[in-house]
Amino acid sequence: MPDLLDTTQPKTIVVVGGVAGGMSCAARARRLDESANIIVLERGEHVSFANCGLPYFVGGEIEDPAALLVQTPASLHAALALDVRPGHDVVGLDASQKTVTVQTADGQQSIGFDALVLSPGAAAFVPPLPGIDSPRVRTLRTVNDATDLRDMVTGGARRAVVLGAGFIGIEAAEALAAQNLEVTVVELAPQPLPPMEPELAWLITEELRQLGIDLRVGVAAASIEPGIDSDSVVLADGSRVDADMVVVSVGVRPDTSVFEQAGVACERGAIIVDSHGRTNVPGIWAVGDATLSVDKVTGARRPVALAGPANRAGRLVADDILRPDHAREIPQPVGTAIVRVGSLAAALTGANRRALVDAGVAFRTLHLHANQHAGYFPGAAQVHLIVHIAPESGLILGAQAVGLEGVDKRIDVLATAIRAGMTVDELIDLDLAYSPPYGQAKDAVNLTGMVGENVLNGTLALWYADDLTEALDSALVLDVRRADEWVTGHLPGALHIPHTELRERIDEVREHAAGRPVRVMCASGVRSAIAHRVVTQAGMESASLSGGILTLRATLGDRASELLETEAVLQPV
Amino acid sequence: MPDLLDTTQPKTIVVVGGVAGGMSCAARARRLDESANIIVLERGEHVSFANCGLPYFVGGEIEDPAALLVQTPASLHAALALDVRPGHDVVGLDASQKTVTVQTADGQQSIGFDALVLSPGAAAFVPPLPGIDSPRVRTLRTVNDATDLRDMVTGGARRAVVLGAGFIGIEAAEALAAQNLEVTVVELAPQPLPPMEPELAWLITEELRQLGIDLRVGVAAASIEPGIDSDSVVLADGSRVDADMVVVSVGVRPDTSVFEQAGVACERGAIIVDSHGRTNVPGIWAVGDATLSVDKVTGARRPVALAGPANRAGRLVADDILRPDHAREIPQPVGTAIVRVGSLAAALTGANRRALVDAGVAFRTLHLHANQHAGYFPGAAQVHLIVHIAPESGLILGAQAVGLEGVDKRIDVLATAIRAGMTVDELIDLDLAYSPPYGQAKDAVNLTGMVGENVLNGTLALWYADDLTEALDSALVLDVRRADEWVTGHLPGALHIPHTELRERIDEVREHAAGRPVRVMCASGVRSAIAHRVVTQAGMESASLSGGILTLRATLGDRASELLETEAVLQPV
Repeated sequence: MPDLLDTTQPKTIVVVGGVAGGMSCAARARRLDESANIIVLERGEHVSFANCGLPYFVGGEIEDPAALLVQTPASLHAALALDVRPGHDVVGLDASQKTVTVQTADGQQSIGFDALVLSPGAAAFVPPLPGIDSPRVRTLRTVNDATDLRDMVTGGARRAVVLGAGFIGIEAAEALAAQNLEVTVVELAPQPLPPMEPELAWLITEELRQLGIDLRVGVAAASIEPGIDSDSVVLADGSRVDADMVVVSVGVRPDTSVFEQAGVACERGAIIVDSHGRTNVPGIWAVGDATLSVDKVTGARRPVALAGPANRAGRLVADDILRPDHAREIPQPVGTAIVRVGSLAAALTGANRRALVDAGVAFRTLHLHANQHAGYFPGAAQVHLIVHIAPESGLILGAQAVGLEGVDKRIDVLATAIRAGMTVDELIDLDLAYSPPYGQAKDAVNLTGMVGENVLNGTLALWYADDLTEALDSALVLDVRRADEWVTGHLPGALHIPHTELRERIDEVREHAAGRPVRVMCASGVRSAIAHRVVTQAGMESASLSGGILTLRATLGDRASELLETEAVLQPV
Repeated sequence: MPDLLDTTQPKTIVVVGGVAGGMSCAARARRLDESANIIVLERGEHVSFANCGLPYFVGGEIEDPAALLVQTPASLHAALALDVRPGHDVVGLDASQKTVTVQTADGQQSIGFDALVLSPGAAAFVPPLPGIDSPRVRTLRTVNDATDLRDMVTGGARRAVVLGAGFIGIEAAEALAAQNLEVTVVELAPQPLPPMEPELAWLITEELRQLGIDLRVGVAAASIEPGIDSDSVVLADGSRVDADMVVVSVGVRPDTSVFEQAGVACERGAIIVDSHGRTNVPGIWAVGDATLSVDKVTGARRPVALAGPANRAGRLVADDILRPDHAREIPQPVGTAIVRVGSLAAALTGANRRALVDAGVAFRTLHLHANQHAGYFPGAAQVHLIVHIAPESGLILGAQAVGLEGVDKRIDVLATAIRAGMTVDELIDLDLAYSPPYGQAKDAVNLTGMVGENVLNGTLALWYADDLTEALDSALVLDVRRADEWVTGHLPGALHIPHTELRERIDEVREHAAGRPVRVMCASGVRSAIAHRVVTQAGMESASLSGGILTLRATLGDRASELLETEAVLQPV
């Protein structure tokens, strides 16, 4: 049992920032070295608090604010002999002298270090709107933010406006709606959860409506007009929303100016680090939301504000400080995230379409709507799944899912597959746990592999909801659903032949197609894939609608009811 | 869009067995080849039925027997132009003439084939006990078995005996207990769910007791004495259990004698196949429960009776028949399984201790008890997780878990990691979906990676509950839990110092150890790992109890209350 630790000289390790990455680093450093002097400087009142739990405290689902304080300076001293100092704001750094200057309530002091770990995090971005300094306006980054907002709720606030429909904004909105507040969410992007693909974001839009939340997308807040009993949030379209409380959640910015001024190299405010978390300054490392990451899938360079990668980097930086010969590299983040929205979960991992397009990475997209467990077992519900793959190699590039149950599991499996560099056909081979209450013998992930393999080797050709205009203009749309599904809404001009009748009626398809390509569709893409094989082998050019009318409806959103016909049934001649 | 299919001559493909692997093969074959003549011969009345759902139908959770019949011959003809023939029992094979002989209600007939796919499955093993042919005794493999058992339940059966506590036996037992029957389970092995590690099986034992199920382990059934109002099951220990119904679920045997007699090579009754599912006879393939698999982790050769691998092999055999140049190899199964037991889920993937020992594979074991989601979020509950790793390479060899929630997710992630050939330290790097309702910023799987890495590089030394006698005899047991935990039960002779006081009281440890090694323990292994570092760096030989007293208690089972002291507190001098 070799001990790799070099204990020849006690070190002073100073960590700036006592949450997530910083605290993971300090704790790991102590595990490696009992002799080190480990000082954690935290600007705020609290360290190691549950920042991801704040929205649920505001909403009352977490009742005791003490639950948010996972550790205290006293508990960290007792367990790990850490010297944790809240209320210590680092206002200066002298890299050559190896000292930081700290502002406390009692004035300034200087603290020396052998190793400095910067984990300052990112500050909530507050847009410079007129009236934004109203006492009814709060961000949601600290325990104090959360207790202030909670006080407003328990103090009788009835109407809340949330600016920003990102993950934290949505969490805050659903938490407040669950407390029976009237909630309005304002988002500049054309959809909630901007990193989600539009056809999944639509399911979130519908769920937010179901929750009674007033969602205003594609519009900015212009100003906040403070009033006596309430404020008014004025939007760029001129509309006004009265609010007893306003939660601002429009993004975060790395909080690094002190360090950049002292010579720590940054890129658009984010600290540049190597694969061991080292900055350009010897003896100074950085981790967490304030650092620049290189995305594993796209190579994009941007900060990633997620707890998991921050904790991991903190641990590995401690390794690099105390056992530099043995420290593993910090992996490039895949960027996995999940959010609860009412009864739904929405999750993503890897790259989305926009990231792939921006990075110039070619991709194909697969849509699946497979049950989370056996269809014959009570409670079966669909997991709506999107997976992007590389068109040549089949490498899995990204995945997103929305559903009632089992969303986290599929995204975690796919995140693992992305980390492992798996190709889509290898998903077929995954032995996933199956019994009727937990899965299907062919899990949604296995099915993704089968569809992906078929696409890669040409057994299956897909068309997409985004190609709808082209399909309507220059192809025959062949709808192979049952008659009772067809009448609930179908594309204009489509030919309806249930897939069970297709083989005997294939001449009708040929006649209607009249040389045009055939664009097959069904509810979710399963039957149309079978039908595509029939049509193809009958000698016609064919493709199957990825995700079927479920995905088509979600892509169209509110336009679906205009476009889809529910009356006229085109009888084949 | 190249079509890889060779359609120069229509083929007749005969599939023997219309469930899981056989039906997956037939369906895939049709997708690849519209011209093929595809005949499915099924001995039983039903094809493509939900065999995994049978216990839940017996228990009444699935109410409609029609739900078990996922497909019918008619629906398969309509959708896939398959010629499905139930009631067709294959009783002969002439490999040189390429014909099978089929027994039907109308007599025998001969059917020719170009390609033959054997998917006969495995038959329930019925032990040759006196009285086993009582009408109150049933196996649970077919729809008719299930409806018979369901009829007994609805007909007023109050007492059920289940012979065999494997996965299906446990499913049947809990389903019957949920219907308020008095249920006794008889298992020859010393625990329920024999493939589970004993320290996890103990949690199942406790849950079965909680459900009111009378569990008799380590004992065989000797005979069944039929009576007028009920039967009596007589056990080898002389005890008797009255039963209105008896479910026999003691294992399955490949159903291959017809084919072996015809020259298809078998090993202990299981058909030998190559990586494309080909038997030794050209033109004959085999898939599913009746075939021999080579385990991915241990290389063990045995049949695997799981739906997922059967479906996968069926699909790949169709590829090998119709596009032999492009068919992927059938992957070696990892052997993932899950079962619901009351409010718990129990799951496993890869190799267990016995399989590793049998195969001569060296391993280390990690025990974790991490919450399924953030501890501060309502409903947090532990996932009890065991992972076996290779001591040098760190390769993940197997994993098992039991818990209220999130068991399936962790096992699926670990099954994916095993399939990808990941090492345990790579688990640290997995970006798993985190928000408080769904996970932890450091998920149980990530934590497994951290513990495993620490073990591999010597930062953490483990001792095990199985080493208890040695620890009590020749080491100092150091219990670092809080005082309120210590008094609930501790090892005799242990020294109690809470981990928060350890650094200042380290000399007491040295004094008590008096040169002996120190065996540290806490509740779950987290605090003892920290304490281990303190003790080690103070110059003493030390190890931390894997899984803490939670695992120790589960290992001891009913003996825990005898061994653990709840009164005497050894005060350090």
